[in-house]
Amino acid sequence: MWVQFPPGAPRGTMKINVGVIGGYRCSRKDYNTAYHLGKLIAREDWVLVCGGGGGVMEAACKGAKEEGGLTVGILPSLEGDEANPYLDVKITTGLGYARNILVVRASQVLVAVDGKHGTLSEIAFALNEGKTVYGINTWDIKGVIKVKSCEEAINRIKRFIKRFL
Amino acid sequence: MWVQFPPGAPRGTMKINVGVIGGYRCSRKDYNTAYHLGKLIAREDWVLVCGGGGGVMEAACKGAKEEGGLTVGILPSLEGDEANPYLDVKITTGLGYARNILVVRASQVLVAVDGKHGTLSEIAFALNEGKTVYGINTWDIKGVIKVKSCEEAINRIKRFIKRFL
Amino acid sequence: MWVQFPPGAPRGTMKINVGVIGGYRCSRKDYNTAYHLGKLIAREDWVLVCGGGGGVMEAACKGAKEEGGLTVGILPSLEGDEANPYLDVKITTGLGYARNILVVRASQVLVAVDGKHGTLSEIAFALNEGKTVYGINTWDIKGVIKVKSCEEAINRIKRFIKRFL
Amino acid sequence: MWVQFPPGAPRGTMKINVGVIGGYRCSRKDYNTAYHLGKLIAREDWVLVCGGGGGVMEAACKGAKEEGGLTVGILPSLEGDEANPYLDVKITTGLGYARNILVVRASQVLVAVDGKHGTLSEIAFALNEGKTVYGINTWDIKGVIKVKSCEEAINRIKRFIKRFL
Repeated sequence: MWVQFPPGAPRGTMKINVGVIGGYRCSRKDYNTAYHLGKLIAREDWVLVCGGGGGVMEAACKGAKEEGGLTVGILPSLEGDEANPYLDVKITTGLGYARNILVVRASQVLVAVDGKHGTLSEIAFALNEGKTVYGINTWDIKGVIKVKSCEEAINRIKRFIKRFL
Repeated sequence: MWVQFPPGAPRGTMKINVGVIGGYRCSRKDYNTAYHLGKLIAREDWVLVCGGGGGVMEAACKGAKEEGGLTVGILPSLEGDEANPYLDVKITTGLGYARNILVVRASQVLVAVDGKHGTLSEIAFALNEGKTVYGINTWDIKGVIKVKSCEEAINRIKRFIKRFL
Repeated sequence: MWVQFPPGAPRGTMKINVGVIGGYRCSRKDYNTAYHLGKLIAREDWVLVCGGGGGVMEAACKGAKEEGGLTVGILPSLEGDEANPYLDVKITTGLGYARNILVVRASQVLVAVDGKHGTLSEIAFALNEGKTVYGINTWDIKGVIKVKSCEEAINRIKRFIKRFL
Repeated sequence: MWVQFPPGAPRGTMKINVGVIGGYRCSRKDYNTAYHLGKLIAREDWVLVCGGGGGVMEAACKGAKEEGGLTVGILPSLEGDEANPYLDVKITTGLGYARNILVVRASQVLVAVDGKHGTLSEIAFALNEGKTVYGINTWDIKGVIKVKSCEEAINRIKRFIKRFL
């Protein structure tokens, strides 16, 4: 089981990671969606994991930081220059887009907003690993659970977590 | 440029790698398609790169070996027990399905036959890296070049290679 | 440059990652050293990155958490059951010990305490990537900068950082 | 078990991979050693796996090709321009020196000749994964089995293989 609640453990270990995936460039509308999603994730005290870049990733991190959340970016480069300015933790990898795999593996559940082939690779990889992916205005792929709002995504993640406790 | 033809270099270095991706289980029809594809790839003296497992991968390797081709399987496990019996080179990775990335990166061009989410992750990752993917009876994703037969795939790859020489 | 200080950026982005590497089992003496090291790293407001396991990693995280620091564990398994209970961020990878590479790449500078072949692989990989490694009671390898105390390590890291600002 | 001998399987599957690791630049003496080692590996019909570059890697591949062996290079770059001209199979990875891990994982047994920190990272990683490493004029690390000649390395590998059949 991936959610560990050892008795007396510090608070930090009780958090789950929610992956937010989407394009490093996106429309204003998708940016706003991701920003709102980030806020809601932070309010639940979940760790926000993403690819660390711009667009959907930046928006989600911005939202999360404004609510005092914890944000993690798993970055393609060795140096991390592509990092958005709302990351608490920068994991530079030097793997290029192979880091997409790590974003998926580090997340217990994922939400996709918009996105192009990179996001599709994450969606497909997540589904292949048996992970749950919620989708807002993203690729219409068999296996993705379409949701209509950020609130619906959050509610579904809550229920998902409860099933494992 | 990825196709190196240094003057006087041994033959081996002149080969390009064609990735064949598809499900580790597949229908008889798709098996036959992949088998035929493997034969054609070997006749062109290209190296066949795949995930090394069953189904489409096995069929393609079987076809290639029957024509004296060279086959490479990039395998998920540390031990390689999942390898099909038609591999000249087994690259065990211990990375699980993260090895999908390596199949894509090791191929200069790819052909997808059938396949589920694992194959989709390879298609998406390849397109994201700017690689050309030909598809036979596989995911209908923007960017994949649909072909109707193995012969068409081979002809298109030949033209693709010529553009880079 | 890996240390980004964009004007007006949130505090989080100003932190550097210090990798602490060492055995997942260790002597009481090395445990105490790593524990003290973790405290000092947290007091500097640096992010502590490690392999997330027991021994030296656990000790450093415990120390860091007691000082309110931020701790990141890059874990070998998919599920993260091997995580020590002092991690704010758990990056599960499913890569086995190949995750050692990621610990190195995610750190701007590293401190090794004790350790066996796994730690040696991290030291060697870090030096190969041109990174600075400080060593306390660890492998005596050309390139590792031996330090006699945690305080000396911290002072040297401070000077190292200043050179890049 | 990593050496598969399925009844009636094609010849290719019966081969084991021997990793040759060492510096991409080396002395004439070490070049000659690696060249001779490559010849002997090819005569045993083992697959030679290496990092695909110059120096020790090039020498071993050159020797192997002169004896009709099969050579595999697992390369740091996406394009493979650093490949030596004696490779039958080029596995381009785009992972930089993180590909060292893959050289180790793809080899059932390794021989180190000379080498700097990159080679040390491979030696240490191999020992950490429980693999056997024979060393000729290389890092004097606990766990490496020192051998005095290529012939001794080959004889020891033969005995090593027999223990697993």
